[in-house]
Amino acid sequence: MVDGWERGLVAHQGLLAHGRGEAFDYLLGERTTSPARRATRLAARVLRAARHPVISVNGNLAALVPEELVALAAAIPAPLEINLFHRSEARIARIARALRSHGASIVYGQGADARVPGLRSPRGRVHRAGIGTADVVLVGLEDGDRTEKLRRQGVLVIAVDLNPLSRTARRAHLTIVDNATRAYAALVEAVRTIPRRQAGGPRRVLIGWDNQASLAASASVIRRVAAGLV
Amino acid sequence: MVDGWERGLVAHQGLLAHGRGEAFDYLLGERTTSPARRATRLAARVLRAARHPVISVNGNLAALVPEELVALAAAIPAPLEINLFHRSEARIARIARALRSHGASIVYGQGADARVPGLRSPRGRVHRAGIGTADVVLVGLEDGDRTEKLRRQGVLVIAVDLNPLSRTARRAHLTIVDNATRAYAALVEAVRTIPRRQAGGPRRVLIGWDNQASLAASASVIRRVAAGLV
Repeated sequence: MVDGWERGLVAHQGLLAHGRGEAFDYLLGERTTSPARRATRLAARVLRAARHPVISVNGNLAALVPEELVALAAAIPAPLEINLFHRSEARIARIARALRSHGASIVYGQGADARVPGLRSPRGRVHRAGIGTADVVLVGLEDGDRTEKLRRQGVLVIAVDLNPLSRTARRAHLTIVDNATRAYAALVEAVRTIPRRQAGGPRRVLIGWDNQASLAASASVIRRVAAGLV
Repeated sequence: MVDGWERGLVAHQGLLAHGRGEAFDYLLGERTTSPARRATRLAARVLRAARHPVISVNGNLAALVPEELVALAAAIPAPLEINLFHRSEARIARIARALRSHGASIVYGQGADARVPGLRSPRGRVHRAGIGTADVVLVGLEDGDRTEKLRRQGVLVIAVDLNPLSRTARRAHLTIVDNATRAYAALVEAVRTIPRRQAGGPRRVLIGWDNQASLAASASVIRRVAAGLV
């Protein structure tokens, strides 16, 4: 992570965010929990059922899991779109270069030409051909604002977040509470096991899914770890 | 914190550590808990009973609570000693300058002339007149190794740490599980209410204190927060 920062991919605020994630990972026992496994399998089906899915990438993800992002984009298939809170065109260019060096074909984010309505932060700048017209967006290590605004636009949001209590985790339709280094690799595997585009569209796949109950199950893992270690 | 990093006080690993602390603070409800209040009152008595107490300072503390460190040093009284894991003489000099600009008189750490036996990391480099001969050391936002080695040298260690499950928290004789921004200010207040040097020495003050039970009480706050927010 510090390496990603030195290479100019990660904002220093990204180091703080990564530290917060480490603490939650520690409290989850530093392993993929069963609620995370269930959420990952369902996310793979949603992504395969989508008409126009997009994988949102920020600096931390590009530093942590570049190969998994590229493999996931190929497996779904879905474009990658770089979307930064601490946006600079130079950092976007560095991240795009890093992703392409790992074999990415479509990388949106440079010269964004649309906006997420109501989202004034730099995260509101998106590509019309990417997040601007997506029906499903996979977001990782995110701010809660964008998840909420995308949801209001009718977009189905899948989030990867280590904090089951975060706004992103609670606002997403489907949340994978797991470390990105494990979650994206598991998503690639899961997507590959689904032979073809799921029928009925992504919302149909989600029928019966109770995301709040899944988050509560992750929070109860934290309770058990906090109880067991002292 | 990012400001402290930009001023060259904080190592980028310090940003990660700070992020981890933020997550634990969030899980403690971002307030001083009653176990922390009890530990703080006792810590003030231990510091006042010590023959040669020393306040250990790292980059994160110098960035977060410089005024409180200087006020605490005057109130006990005790010298400040800069001790860094990611040690560089330039960063020590910047931190010493920052502390002196807030009115610190004795700041050890530049040109350290002794070692903590058995501690090979840069944290092992100490001042003979400071940590090298201290009977009580107050450490904040620490690595567990030094706490353990100091303890083996017969030093009484008081730790300020937001993670009640950390090695530092568990190895210290007395642990204040609280945010440094609240804990050091509260320590200054508490020390000021103790009229004179406590009789009997610091170990006598600690008789009857069960640090593991205090940590378990802090961990149970985390359990309640994790249970309540989803």
